Amino acid sequence: MPRMTILTEAELRRLVPLDQDAVSCVENAFLALATKPVAMPPILRLDIPEHRGEVDVKTAYVPGLDGFAIKISPGFFDNPTLGLPSVNGLMVLLSARTGLVEAMLLDNGYLTDVRTAAAGAVAAKHLSRPDSSIAAVFGAGVQAALQLEALTLVRPIREARLWARDPARASAAAARLSDRLGIPVQAMAEGRAAVAGADIVVTTTPADAPILFADWLSPGQHVTAMGSDAEHKNELEPAVLARADLYVADSLKQVRRLGELHHAIAAGAVPADHAFPELGAVIAGQAPGRTSPDQITVCDLTGTGVQDTAIATLARGRALAANAGTVFDA
Amino acid sequence: MPRMTILTEAELRRLVPLDQDAVSCVENAFLALATKPVAMPPILRLDIPEHRGEVDVKTAYVPGLDGFAIKISPGFFDNPTLGLPSVNGLMVLLSARTGLVEAMLLDNGYLTDVRTAAAGAVAAKHLSRPDSSIAAVFGAGVQAALQLEALTLVRPIREARLWARDPARASAAAARLSDRLGIPVQAMAEGRAAVAGADIVVTTTPADAPILFADWLSPGQHVTAMGSDAEHKNELEPAVLARADLYVADSLKQVRRLGELHHAIAAGAVPADHAFPELGAVIAGQAPGRTSPDQITVCDLTGTGVQDTAIATLARGRALAANAGTVFDA
Repeated sequence: MPRMTILTEAELRRLVPLDQDAVSCVENAFLALATKPVAMPPILRLDIPEHRGEVDVKTAYVPGLDGFAIKISPGFFDNPTLGLPSVNGLMVLLSARTGLVEAMLLDNGYLTDVRTAAAGAVAAKHLSRPDSSIAAVFGAGVQAALQLEALTLVRPIREARLWARDPARASAAAARLSDRLGIPVQAMAEGRAAVAGADIVVTTTPADAPILFADWLSPGQHVTAMGSDAEHKNELEPAVLARADLYVADSLKQVRRLGELHHAIAAGAVPADHAFPELGAVIAGQAPGRTSPDQITVCDLTGTGVQDTAIATLARGRALAANAGTVFDA
Repeated sequence: MPRMTILTEAELRRLVPLDQDAVSCVENAFLALATKPVAMPPILRLDIPEHRGEVDVKTAYVPGLDGFAIKISPGFFDNPTLGLPSVNGLMVLLSARTGLVEAMLLDNGYLTDVRTAAAGAVAAKHLSRPDSSIAAVFGAGVQAALQLEALTLVRPIREARLWARDPARASAAAARLSDRLGIPVQAMAEGRAAVAGADIVVTTTPADAPILFADWLSPGQHVTAMGSDAEHKNELEPAVLARADLYVADSLKQVRRLGELHHAIAAGAVPADHAFPELGAVIAGQAPGRTSPDQITVCDLTGTGVQDTAIATLARGRALAANAGTVFDA
């Protein structure tokens, strides 16, 4: 009779905060992707258009890790009208040796939030100027807040600007973030103004048409675009990729299908077959990162199964150490 | 705080036996596949060769059903040396309206066994001669037993033969099945002898080279091949498909990649682009099934997400009616 540990969102929030360890965990995941024979199949995607629903299933096996996660991420965009969150989900952690279920991480998307924000920190750590102190965030949701918080873990951020389509939500989010992080966070009416003078720009929206434009950028800036995780989503004007001195993908295979890159290719802004580097290769030193303070760098994050396996493994290890969770015999 | 019901294998075995209802449930699933805008994405597959492990994730959304299943099926073939079963797994049932997890079916593969055997019954019901009374089964595992039991639900089976590579396992399985079903079941030393005179032949092995040959077949026989669910697996000599008067697939898209069909195409035995009918179309009357007692019919089953969603929905309904399972707040 297989025995598994069930961990709830409340337990996982206690066990796995967004901190340096989470950033290191995700950094190691990208490093593994570049240096080990990781198996990461294409995302399984199910669409339920009559309920504005979509489900992604991601997984990856990392040699050397005892377990691997299979993550189920539903997004149902009419849920707020029912008083429910749009995004939910869970991770199932299986033994890499036996395939038996070891843990059910009933995180309602929390671990995804953490590993996604941590990837933003990893991108900034390897691509932004070390002295980056002003951040601009596009969006007013959970990731807008977590991405900014993640930046403060790797760069000396002392000021932030926030732009969102809905000015009221932008103001509220800016006030909350200022409180939480103890730095001034100003809601801006125009995206262009938010970007001017920022060192790091992070886009976190579900936009399906560009919200960040090439002529807004200036030398030395780093851009992380993490909103696009589906074919139709698009945050960056294609010319942003053409203007960048360095464009880096979390997974080149994925961004060619889901990220900003395929829009830029479709628009003819970048060549279709160019071998852009992946974040893991930059971390591993296999590809150059930023080589001068004047470069414009762009990182395109679509979210990878290897991050899920890494954060689930971290959560499982902490749960074992803390004797947390409910043991269930199936 | 999402609330879900957790059902164990023991509970699911009580709630969902292999019976007429299970056969009808799977028959309706194939019917839906032919008549409704079912969404059934390609199987997600992860391979872990260093532990002889593989994981399949299947799903399907059927308009009209309240929920949809995401099934995780690991197969780790060194497990028996550790005293563990090779095949495990679970199903997660989500609301089709909100994406929230409604139930975790910790079935360790049991529901897959049932829906797979039920598909064999559905194939026999629509393709074998109604007076079929002698069955031949290849294999000595769980599916060998369940496929034979499933046949008895839809055809007047009064005798069976069983062939397996390992004669001792074949004899043991035959004795068990004879006891369980109350009909003579004879282990045969030669596959050819098992097939001679049988009305229905079911292959249930993980073979990666043919075990059933065209010149063993005689007019009027029906063959269901259900062992192949991966590119390298192959039970039927390609000439079997060429010799068949009617070849039917569970999912044409899947058999072109995973089933017997792609081996037959690769061997040049059948044309690559032929539009073979699917089982659902035969059930719906959109394509002819068997039209004479002399035809040789073949059904190629690779296992579909729509079967998983159907059986998970059945299990969930029965659990609600019986107030079964453990409620868990995540």
